[in-house]
Amino acid sequence: MKNFFKVTDLDDVLELVSEFKTVEKEIVPILQAGGRIIAENIISDMDLPDFARSTMDGYAVQASSTFGATEGNPAFLKMAGTVLMGETAELSIAPGEAAKISTGGMLPDGADSVVMIEHTQNIDEMALEIYRSVAPGSNIIEKGEDFRKGETILTSCCRLRPQEIGLLAAFGRDMITVYKKPIVGIISTGDEIVPINENPGPARIRDINSYSLSDLVIQTGGVPVPYGIVRDNFSDLKEKCLLAHEKSDMIMISGGSSVGTRDYTIDVLSSLPDAKILVHGISISPGKPTILAAASGKPVWGLPGHVVSSMVVFHMVVRSFIEHISGRSSGSGQHREIPACLSRNISSAQGRLDCIRVRLMQKEGQLAAEPILGKSALINTMVKADGIIVIGLNSEGLEKGSRVSVIPI
Amino acid sequence: MKNFFKVTDLDDVLELVSEFKTVEKEIVPILQAGGRIIAENIISDMDLPDFARSTMDGYAVQASSTFGATEGNPAFLKMAGTVLMGETAELSIAPGEAAKISTGGMLPDGADSVVMIEHTQNIDEMALEIYRSVAPGSNIIEKGEDFRKGETILTSCCRLRPQEIGLLAAFGRDMITVYKKPIVGIISTGDEIVPINENPGPARIRDINSYSLSDLVIQTGGVPVPYGIVRDNFSDLKEKCLLAHEKSDMIMISGGSSVGTRDYTIDVLSSLPDAKILVHGISISPGKPTILAAASGKPVWGLPGHVVSSMVVFHMVVRSFIEHISGRSSGSGQHREIPACLSRNISSAQGRLDCIRVRLMQKEGQLAAEPILGKSALINTMVKADGIIVIGLNSEGLEKGSRVSVIPI
Repeated sequence: MKNFFKVTDLDDVLELVSEFKTVEKEIVPILQAGGRIIAENIISDMDLPDFARSTMDGYAVQASSTFGATEGNPAFLKMAGTVLMGETAELSIAPGEAAKISTGGMLPDGADSVVMIEHTQNIDEMALEIYRSVAPGSNIIEKGEDFRKGETILTSCCRLRPQEIGLLAAFGRDMITVYKKPIVGIISTGDEIVPINENPGPARIRDINSYSLSDLVIQTGGVPVPYGIVRDNFSDLKEKCLLAHEKSDMIMISGGSSVGTRDYTIDVLSSLPDAKILVHGISISPGKPTILAAASGKPVWGLPGHVVSSMVVFHMVVRSFIEHISGRSSGSGQHREIPACLSRNISSAQGRLDCIRVRLMQKEGQLAAEPILGKSALINTMVKADGIIVIGLNSEGLEKGSRVSVIPI
Repeated sequence: MKNFFKVTDLDDVLELVSEFKTVEKEIVPILQAGGRIIAENIISDMDLPDFARSTMDGYAVQASSTFGATEGNPAFLKMAGTVLMGETAELSIAPGEAAKISTGGMLPDGADSVVMIEHTQNIDEMALEIYRSVAPGSNIIEKGEDFRKGETILTSCCRLRPQEIGLLAAFGRDMITVYKKPIVGIISTGDEIVPINENPGPARIRDINSYSLSDLVIQTGGVPVPYGIVRDNFSDLKEKCLLAHEKSDMIMISGGSSVGTRDYTIDVLSSLPDAKILVHGISISPGKPTILAAASGKPVWGLPGHVVSSMVVFHMVVRSFIEHISGRSSGSGQHREIPACLSRNISSAQGRLDCIRVRLMQKEGQLAAEPILGKSALINTMVKADGIIVIGLNSEGLEKGSRVSVIPI
């Protein structure tokens, strides 16, 4: 028999992220920072808000002036004036007084709460009826209630969502330090691969992987740089890899990683500057013949040629490495997986992680994961799928009704 | 009492998407089409693959030549040659013969299956031992097994994921018709709002909404165009709205939609070309004072000024309208919600949908949704949150342990 490569367990592969360093930082306008990984800690330089504000349209009062008020027995208050938006109120509220205030208005001196307009009625310009009592602090936010001056409001290594972009705006941060988007060089190998604008003719197929992998890189926050197709020979692949290695933060080579006659990938990877083969085979299916090397501290992947295998390996393995070199902390974004219920029995071989493509559907009031059968060379199985479930190393399969976690794809 | 606006139920608001037409189409390179909505049906113009291929490194055989083979009692086959990658095999396989073949190689005439290299050993150049029998069709994919010529491979109005980009590559489609990204004009109103690079000083706050809403638009596949801050007066707001209306596919105005003294939004919306107010208040909390108008067939929103309210309304309502005008069919992408278990009792007012911000965490082996308390003017509640759960119109609350669906934010 051929001598097999020694496969590495998925968990051990994922621990290798720490071998690689993150990309450089850059400063960008916050409107271009959505989805990026923040590369600085942000400390608030003021209370937010910087003054007590009304959260309702209504009347600013001392709460004690409203105690006991009901529809049948309203409180009568004296109008002390109107708070103008965006201006410091010059009036002040004494017991038994009220001032008209809009949502977002600054609470006048003396007032400790706001009565909603719906629970009031103007008798005339000077008098107001109140039909419901309020507690102190009602319908207002206090100075510093959102964030206090000196508080850490955002920490490095988190992904910026719309709410964090808004938060940066609140503190006047129009520029922000983020990690650069990692450049990922993509190379397709194989004598049977033709560019997609060519007619493949017999025995050949178009270069699918450059496109599916590029879009996966974009989706993960990287910048794909396709280097085209390389024939199955050492010197062509080495030349292309050296070029890509110089210009990229990571390289993905698809094809040429099986135990085949023309597998120069491992030799080429070994020949890159300061290279070390870290993984030669992973105990997952599909995706076993995956190679990971470090070359001058950059990850270089030999991915399977099958379109589905390479995408599954991307989702299960490569994605974590892109996130790591993008500066994202491993603790953030843990909740991508969707719990569901397996729709039927499924068997699995022991000794490897089986990655099963599934379709999600509502079934008897709950979310069901329906396995999609089909070989890992068939792209239609990925097009039909909504996600991937994993059957563990030591499992012979899962029974219908089992709770599973679906990784969306 | 003030005369209240009549609120519309959320479901009724969501049905109004059909009032609006989709944006125009454009043709883009497929590497720029990821995440976009396809605007044509794609019919396959060839079988995929166009020839029977090996899915393994091994030997192409007639399955019957291997029947009964075991480690102890191997089958002996005669080597008929080697299949070169990317070339039509000139050899042909007779019973008792085998040809070396790599993953992706074209199956030679006569062969109906492939034996994995791991289950074979070369005796010499001419002879091969086989240790395991294969069934016809093993380790190959048939011509047309992925897609048949003439089949519809993609239908209009779906979002393109990496696998669909790969599929388009497989069929040589380097350009694709997609819907344009909708242009969304964003206007902030309020005398208390200052640009984010200014020091707000007393009684004023920075313009958070232009930024949080812009990033939400980007996340939803649109192009935000911020028009800055407009003071609370009819003519300024009208002028800005007319400009935005002419240049956008949708407008979002934040602030100025409560029953306040300076609420010109409804008057301005009514004054836009061919305008009709469709919704004046939605039975959700936060977010009740939301206005929706149609002006010359374009949606125009008056969103609440509170930063959290406007984001919640975006997630619960506006997003569906952007997806609709982006050309996305309502049936696609239904599985965004994450099932979880409520971590504690939560009460709710009847007669409105309560949108509760939650944090997701693993708790006793399952995914728990932990409500985040806090007023809808506090952006920290959105920064802490992973998602939103909805408590129904007719519910007084949910008990600890209830199954909930979390809308990721």
